[in-house]
Amino acid sequence: MKFNPGDTAAVTKTIMQTDIEKFAELSGDRNSIHLDENYAKGTRFQGCIAHGMLTSSLISNVIGNHLPGLGSIYLGQSLRFVAPVFPGDTITARVTVTSIRPDKPIVTLETVCTNQREEAVVKGEAVVLVE
Amino acid sequence: MKFNPGDTAAVTKTIMQTDIEKFAELSGDRNSIHLDENYAKGTRFQGCIAHGMLTSSLISNVIGNHLPGLGSIYLGQSLRFVAPVFPGDTITARVTVTSIRPDKPIVTLETVCTNQREEAVVKGEAVVLVE
Repeated sequence: MKFNPGDTAAVTKTIMQTDIEKFAELSGDRNSIHLDENYAKGTRFQGCIAHGMLTSSLISNVIGNHLPGLGSIYLGQSLRFVAPVFPGDTITARVTVTSIRPDKPIVTLETVCTNQREEAVVKGEAVVLVE
Repeated sequence: MKFNPGDTAAVTKTIMQTDIEKFAELSGDRNSIHLDENYAKGTRFQGCIAHGMLTSSLISNVIGNHLPGLGSIYLGQSLRFVAPVFPGDTITARVTVTSIRPDKPIVTLETVCTNQREEAVVKGEAVVLVE
């Protein structure tokens, strides 16, 4: 295993309303909180927000491309959606190795997405088999 | 709260290689296991597989559109990717209410994605606030 606890990697992306529309199309999740500004204005968020799974897809990006990268087989992910993401927010998804199983090439990573104010928006943990 | 334990809803979609490409573009996860058939043929899966988060996006679909539907605020989701999804697989995402908090309008749902052979591919649990 070429990884060690504490190893970390991140990607950053600004999530635009067009990304939200593409995710709505791909997933089929057309809830008005994501797509209907008039409806969304009347909610606690006072405007459209990104799908939690769209924000979380950046965790898949870091794991698939960077850490562990090629050879990763995603076994599990927990997600807590702790704050809203608005169109135009710049999200950084960071993964950090927290433990490695001694018997198998299975890595556990802390996974956190933060916005441009360094507020956490998604928190969780990933488990990845590395071939 | 208009829901009861046991209430259930589902959506079904066939995941095509074009969906995988769109998710790769949107998330930025361009791991070869999803996009490079020559590479993927040499892995345990013997071909390209869908991103786990793409399959899981169908859970967002059921929650956002159907159960609880409008007014849902996604608080959390756990995901275990228990079997691969190949292009052309027809995936059913089903959510079932397992409990409702007595003090707050917060619903816990079992979330399972199965393929056309009724094999589970993603298992987990969602927590949703209903406004």
